[in-house]
Amino acid sequence: MKAIVAHAAKDLRIEERDPERPGPGEVLIRIERGGICGSDLHYYNHGGFGTVRLKEPMILGHEVSGRVQALGDGVAELTEGQLVAVSPSRPCHACAYCLEGRQNHCLNMRFYGSAMPFPHIQGAFREVLVADQRQCVVADGLSAAEGAMAEPLSVVLHAAKRAGDLMGRRVLVTGCGPIGQLAVMVARAAGAVEIVATDVADFTLKKAREVGADRVHDVAAEPDALDRYGADKGRFDVMFECSGVAAALAAAVPALRPGAVVMQLGLGGDMTLPVQTMTAKEIELRGSFRFHGEFFTAVEMMRAGRLDVKPLVTHAFSVNDAVRAFETAADRSQAIKAQIAFV
Amino acid sequence: MKAIVAHAAKDLRIEERDPERPGPGEVLIRIERGGICGSDLHYYNHGGFGTVRLKEPMILGHEVSGRVQALGDGVAELTEGQLVAVSPSRPCHACAYCLEGRQNHCLNMRFYGSAMPFPHIQGAFREVLVADQRQCVVADGLSAAEGAMAEPLSVVLHAAKRAGDLMGRRVLVTGCGPIGQLAVMVARAAGAVEIVATDVADFTLKKAREVGADRVHDVAAEPDALDRYGADKGRFDVMFECSGVAAALAAAVPALRPGAVVMQLGLGGDMTLPVQTMTAKEIELRGSFRFHGEFFTAVEMMRAGRLDVKPLVTHAFSVNDAVRAFETAADRSQAIKAQIAFV
Amino acid sequence: MKAIVAHAAKDLRIEERDPERPGPGEVLIRIERGGICGSDLHYYNHGGFGTVRLKEPMILGHEVSGRVQALGDGVAELTEGQLVAVSPSRPCHACAYCLEGRQNHCLNMRFYGSAMPFPHIQGAFREVLVADQRQCVVADGLSAAEGAMAEPLSVVLHAAKRAGDLMGRRVLVTGCGPIGQLAVMVARAAGAVEIVATDVADFTLKKAREVGADRVHDVAAEPDALDRYGADKGRFDVMFECSGVAAALAAAVPALRPGAVVMQLGLGGDMTLPVQTMTAKEIELRGSFRFHGEFFTAVEMMRAGRLDVKPLVTHAFSVNDAVRAFETAADRSQAIKAQIAFV
Amino acid sequence: MKAIVAHAAKDLRIEERDPERPGPGEVLIRIERGGICGSDLHYYNHGGFGTVRLKEPMILGHEVSGRVQALGDGVAELTEGQLVAVSPSRPCHACAYCLEGRQNHCLNMRFYGSAMPFPHIQGAFREVLVADQRQCVVADGLSAAEGAMAEPLSVVLHAAKRAGDLMGRRVLVTGCGPIGQLAVMVARAAGAVEIVATDVADFTLKKAREVGADRVHDVAAEPDALDRYGADKGRFDVMFECSGVAAALAAAVPALRPGAVVMQLGLGGDMTLPVQTMTAKEIELRGSFRFHGEFFTAVEMMRAGRLDVKPLVTHAFSVNDAVRAFETAADRSQAIKAQIAFV
Repeated sequence: MKAIVAHAAKDLRIEERDPERPGPGEVLIRIERGGICGSDLHYYNHGGFGTVRLKEPMILGHEVSGRVQALGDGVAELTEGQLVAVSPSRPCHACAYCLEGRQNHCLNMRFYGSAMPFPHIQGAFREVLVADQRQCVVADGLSAAEGAMAEPLSVVLHAAKRAGDLMGRRVLVTGCGPIGQLAVMVARAAGAVEIVATDVADFTLKKAREVGADRVHDVAAEPDALDRYGADKGRFDVMFECSGVAAALAAAVPALRPGAVVMQLGLGGDMTLPVQTMTAKEIELRGSFRFHGEFFTAVEMMRAGRLDVKPLVTHAFSVNDAVRAFETAADRSQAIKAQIAFV
Repeated sequence: MKAIVAHAAKDLRIEERDPERPGPGEVLIRIERGGICGSDLHYYNHGGFGTVRLKEPMILGHEVSGRVQALGDGVAELTEGQLVAVSPSRPCHACAYCLEGRQNHCLNMRFYGSAMPFPHIQGAFREVLVADQRQCVVADGLSAAEGAMAEPLSVVLHAAKRAGDLMGRRVLVTGCGPIGQLAVMVARAAGAVEIVATDVADFTLKKAREVGADRVHDVAAEPDALDRYGADKGRFDVMFECSGVAAALAAAVPALRPGAVVMQLGLGGDMTLPVQTMTAKEIELRGSFRFHGEFFTAVEMMRAGRLDVKPLVTHAFSVNDAVRAFETAADRSQAIKAQIAFV
Repeated sequence: MKAIVAHAAKDLRIEERDPERPGPGEVLIRIERGGICGSDLHYYNHGGFGTVRLKEPMILGHEVSGRVQALGDGVAELTEGQLVAVSPSRPCHACAYCLEGRQNHCLNMRFYGSAMPFPHIQGAFREVLVADQRQCVVADGLSAAEGAMAEPLSVVLHAAKRAGDLMGRRVLVTGCGPIGQLAVMVARAAGAVEIVATDVADFTLKKAREVGADRVHDVAAEPDALDRYGADKGRFDVMFECSGVAAALAAAVPALRPGAVVMQLGLGGDMTLPVQTMTAKEIELRGSFRFHGEFFTAVEMMRAGRLDVKPLVTHAFSVNDAVRAFETAADRSQAIKAQIAFV
Repeated sequence: MKAIVAHAAKDLRIEERDPERPGPGEVLIRIERGGICGSDLHYYNHGGFGTVRLKEPMILGHEVSGRVQALGDGVAELTEGQLVAVSPSRPCHACAYCLEGRQNHCLNMRFYGSAMPFPHIQGAFREVLVADQRQCVVADGLSAAEGAMAEPLSVVLHAAKRAGDLMGRRVLVTGCGPIGQLAVMVARAAGAVEIVATDVADFTLKKAREVGADRVHDVAAEPDALDRYGADKGRFDVMFECSGVAAALAAAVPALRPGAVVMQLGLGGDMTLPVQTMTAKEIELRGSFRFHGEFFTAVEMMRAGRLDVKPLVTHAFSVNDAVRAFETAADRSQAIKAQIAFV
């Protein structure tokens, strides 16, 4: 089978690997779609991020869907041919955090396509994948493209759950890549009464309008755009920070109501922040990282028609075009989510 | 001006009253619509409910909208001719509960059309009303019928806020009168992934389907309808109890997930409940009563198009037809919300 | 080894059983103390409660401590001779509730001394017990009597955690058996600023004063005792209902502040409650059932000296005196917690 | 009467002012004690902080207690001679934040001794003060020194309330000035099972041990002191950051459990923080600013003996020694809280 393997910055190869066989409780999945995430792009473009660096070849990818091709012993709730969304989260189910139901902080996590431990955790951009049945959520009625969106949607649902009730709230989204777009959608689906989004690219702002933002602002063209929301100590109750840029957060502080919750989703290293002002306004800056149970909710919400992620999948490339896929995925003038079409 | 006055059970009169004049900070409103609520029906049909009894004639009504006709001194944010939804909530703004932001428990509340204190608090079913400017929320872009729905919508938004995050949750609504219908709508607007409603009338169940329920059950025809949701200790995360009937709550307990939240909106006197089972399942039974800040949210959500209450206003009658309006309002074979059209 | 076995109501026998051997990850424990709980008393006095009935002989007991006597393979964090508190909670660690960190609702729970499934789950009142190492919490510095209090303390800590922040709050405790006494202690340890307890027995009320209640009321002698707390719509923010008696809850409603949280710990079958009044006051009635992670916290809080449960262990009897122990345990004129001393 | 007036950095004067007379609802208070706060020290030492600068002479002080000397019309709940703690918080009771019960964000706040608006809000370091009766909380049974501690205690209670339930939690306090000491005390009173404090001064660390810290670390002597708490992704559930120093927060991140809550109380301008690591650990950085309802709780908790702040009042100086009082208040080798004794 073919796999998409990062060897170093800008060294991405299509390689043959031997497929595995499903053991007890496992299934063999023929992968159909794989979405390219920001961390995949970091490995591809820079060989890693911060202290997380490639030290050996690693199969990339953790946003995948596919069809069940074979069942290991004891798998009763899946059938061959079913489309499934595959969660990349593989916690140990035994450490203190797993026992608390906070599997995203598992001490022994083996999350697909992650260079954090060594040997690295190999990813899911491969034609055939063996997964635990608990990772597989039936995606009947969805397309494979939608199934592969379950993962980033889970990330946003996790953040939204941590943000608290959104109904009737005013929401600001900074950064309109795939996570920001999904934040707009989720805020809309959760009943936010006003949604404003900012970015620096026309294409993403236009898309944000289409998927549910009431207003958008280009903060490259108008750096002070959010100042208009500063009356009466600020307007927004909740902010999804999806850019990872300190300036985006700092510029938003005057527009946040006292007590506002900022869900930090963007990853941007150290940040210099106006902490004194944030303290006086009792802003809550909450990191949000990955997800766990939200993966089931993500698939279910798409299946129930509560939100439609199809407009976000702007591109699909064959495996052999993987390099072009990665180059496109990073281009905010035309792409939100680029996927690899394995079949 | 005409007013609709309850003198005793089944003794409803259209009477002439002298209009008041707006003082400082007050406005004169020409009422356009007034919705008939369950409590209005109790006064009309039974002269009260529980220990709350009519002891003197009382103008009914607390769900009203109208147009600003004159401004008292110091009113700057309203203009003549504007359509406003009028909150019936008039807290003292000075007691301990008001200072905590929990005005719905104000020690000195003067809520329109309420026989609880004596002398009674006269209601808002009158052609002209003087209100504090803080009670008035501009309803531009809405119809007067919608404006008069702000009050019951506020009741449900308050309950929904107390229920916590509804996104991705499974919701059960028992009782499909106006409050139950709004609970279906609000659950849908807040991103609930599955909404099931029960009632004993075909008409209300059909309406519940139209406004957002995924499935409905007639528990008169099938008393055990909810048993199908009992697998794995139950299915629903949140329940809105809008019937006030103990049997409705008791029958739902097996269908509730451990830890489920039951928002009790129906008022039905004492209830005999399976508290031991509810305790073992860690059910949370939370009373919900009136609202406060949610009145603004209600108007804003309607104006932003987040929910459309128009299908719930099934009838409108002129003031002179008030008795027929009250008779119709209680008839669940044809009515959800009946309103008085004052103009 | 000897075990304390309930055959039917009032038919309690001391029987010889074969000791088990510890498998991998398990330890052999020489039991030192076992506390008699209300459910043990129900089996002893009535052969069960509600629909939970003895259908075969069952070893009672689930509040135990003892010394590690032998280690199974792979047990690294315990050593022979250590005193441990043993959690009776044995969830499956695999069902949906376990994965959410809500093991107390495990679909496959095997809680010691429980007649709910059939065959029954045998209990821990035996001289030697084999337990999973995860059930054992090192109790260095505590007495065996204190170690055996970890279980009921966990029950109360779980309820207190569900009640929310207690610091600076006014707390009412109804029912001063062991759970009520611990509720007083925990409320005190958590910073409650006023603690009032009610019961119908002098002995327990006196004890409640000793362990931290600011005031106590004998509601047999003075049924309206709580009416004095009814000014301004009520005084208490949080109530721990530990009697299982509907009248206790009903009598407390006027003394509860609007929005008060009632933690229902007492188990008393169906209850007729003033739900309309509770709804108008927005009371939250929250069932609380067992515990899970709180077992670790319970032992740690005792070890850190944050609370001292020794005054609650009023009696200890040898195994051969088990019948006398059970008779005493139910006698509120002299006993709070009676324990079996196995060594 | 004498007042303590800051004219500019290091220019503090004792001046004569005309006493006011109490109007309706007001009382005249003979001030007994006034505690010197960090913001008072900023005005004294630097003429302000950040963009908040002295632009005209301002009476300092906002932590005061005194005796009621005369009652204005309509004051019924206070009597002459009573000791009262006086809240410096004077919200408008009419803006949107006040109506939500979040008076600490009042749009029109007049907080004693604050140079933020111009003209400045004059402070309470004066022999005689006229205050609204709602600002005065009866402090019977407390000393005037304790009464003047109600204000900083309120600040910490507010932060603790925002931090959520502390019972059984592990708490880290960074910075052991008056606020940090109170954080240790409050964490202890609220049932925290482990409390660790850090500072750079022997005196304050020794005091922290006395008032409830289980362990203290001098991070000047041992900058990596907190690394010992880094196993299993960190140990502390809650942190009270009372130093305002970015390095203190950054150094603590490895010792915080995933999902830990950091209450930011220290004010230190912009901070460069390891936001990426904080995000991956889902740390919540919550600003905490002033207080409101907590002032009543603070007095009540002291009166009920739930905590004893007397050990924190290390110095008292007469009004004429004000300069020496301010110099001493800033000296962490000998002082926690220095007060002015007006009588």
